[in-house]
Amino acid sequence: MSAATPAELPREAAQRLLDGCPLHAAIGLELLDWDASRVRFAFRPPALVRSDGAGVHGGAIATALDTAACFAVIAAVGHDCGTLDLRTDFVRPVTGAELSVTGTVRRAGRRFAFADATVETLPGTLLASARGVFTW
Amino acid sequence: MSAATPAELPREAAQRLLDGCPLHAAIGLELLDWDASRVRFAFRPPALVRSDGAGVHGGAIATALDTAACFAVIAAVGHDCGTLDLRTDFVRPVTGAELSVTGTVRRAGRRFAFADATVETLPGTLLASARGVFTW
Amino acid sequence: MSAATPAELPREAAQRLLDGCPLHAAIGLELLDWDASRVRFAFRPPALVRSDGAGVHGGAIATALDTAACFAVIAAVGHDCGTLDLRTDFVRPVTGAELSVTGTVRRAGRRFAFADATVETLPGTLLASARGVFTW
Amino acid sequence: MSAATPAELPREAAQRLLDGCPLHAAIGLELLDWDASRVRFAFRPPALVRSDGAGVHGGAIATALDTAACFAVIAAVGHDCGTLDLRTDFVRPVTGAELSVTGTVRRAGRRFAFADATVETLPGTLLASARGVFTW
Repeated sequence: MSAATPAELPREAAQRLLDGCPLHAAIGLELLDWDASRVRFAFRPPALVRSDGAGVHGGAIATALDTAACFAVIAAVGHDCGTLDLRTDFVRPVTGAELSVTGTVRRAGRRFAFADATVETLPGTLLASARGVFTW
Repeated sequence: MSAATPAELPREAAQRLLDGCPLHAAIGLELLDWDASRVRFAFRPPALVRSDGAGVHGGAIATALDTAACFAVIAAVGHDCGTLDLRTDFVRPVTGAELSVTGTVRRAGRRFAFADATVETLPGTLLASARGVFTW
Repeated sequence: MSAATPAELPREAAQRLLDGCPLHAAIGLELLDWDASRVRFAFRPPALVRSDGAGVHGGAIATALDTAACFAVIAAVGHDCGTLDLRTDFVRPVTGAELSVTGTVRRAGRRFAFADATVETLPGTLLASARGVFTW
Repeated sequence: MSAATPAELPREAAQRLLDGCPLHAAIGLELLDWDASRVRFAFRPPALVRSDGAGVHGGAIATALDTAACFAVIAAVGHDCGTLDLRTDFVRPVTGAELSVTGTVRRAGRRFAFADATVETLPGTLLASARGVFTW
């Protein structure tokens, strides 16, 4: 839609933050788009996070959502942040092999930010979402 | 306090449900207490879920909380369930090696249940909590 | 944007449901738009819900958001519903005299619906939002 | 159980804060207990907040819960605060004439606090609860 605004933190620094915790790669998260208003990940959940090889564990979904919302805040404010609280909604069963996770900042203040994240199929069907408050 | 009420589902069946998804063991969750009103897990977060080897990823904490609350519902109603939504609060930084995760049902109805979970240090300091609605 | 889809419940029936509780009018809510995918209210908070005549009480904001999300579900499913849980975010201070409250359904199933609501200024600045699960 | 700890703010100042917004009295809230670890209100919902004279509006319940949690934080920190976000769970239908609303602080830090609130019948059955983050 609109042209991407450059993120406050270079993409390389974001990738290093992401690499700092092996859980991100272990659940199949890979950073795709990095700009100040929106960050997007590929999410390819491996057998590790599936129940009997099928449905994706809600915890892995929450991890992907928390990561996307948190990194959206990082892109907007230019430094690391922590999650104060997060609400996750499991809108539809998550079973696919290739998903998209997007984080967006709703408002970033001096001390807090409100951010959202969604897990969608590639055609754009909403599967799960999260909304939280982040601080630093 | 009170004597444990037998869970509606045998402990062996609960353990099989737990073993059905490798993520539980991968984040260091182990079932300790299993009764109808409360379930308790040991939570020993490995390097996989730590950022730069220190703080535990919020996603792993959310996974532990979701699992404990969900299994508390399973213990109460006697069959598997799914999470509709979950609020997680990150009350204090989580860095320890040996934690305790407890799930409790607040109300189980015919079609859904309200349940809580907490992550605490072994001496009982609250580190994180969750509250959600579960259905089947 | 898109043409409005007719709501499953006639507008008159929705207005009667709304009139069934005097709190709606007392906090300054008035139904404006009524269609199956979105409902919109005018929200003109009176002195009753203001602290020292200025800021609008979070409880009145939560009431407006709960009402808008709930009526969005009613418009989509065609009958009354109840709120199971609701998360409200107070994104910016709410002080204005004339606000807009919109409810939208994210997914309506056979037994549950996920819905959102926002409080905005007339120019469209987000002041508060809510997300919840509704059942019937 | 334990003896009450004196609140950081005198009860008279708390009552003035409460009187600053007419909504509190209009929904039937009256301050009963005021100490640093717990605040308690009588909640006698009038016809204003009932649907067709029966069930209490979720918005009035959310208002009571928000107020109790917020005032628990005020009692603990000694000054006014605002709600950042609040999750409300409607655990059972609320229809009674005389209810009890209690707010408790889970953790108060330098910049924000986590607090809970419950609406119960006088015999102590849980009807609704809330959990939120408060700041100042």
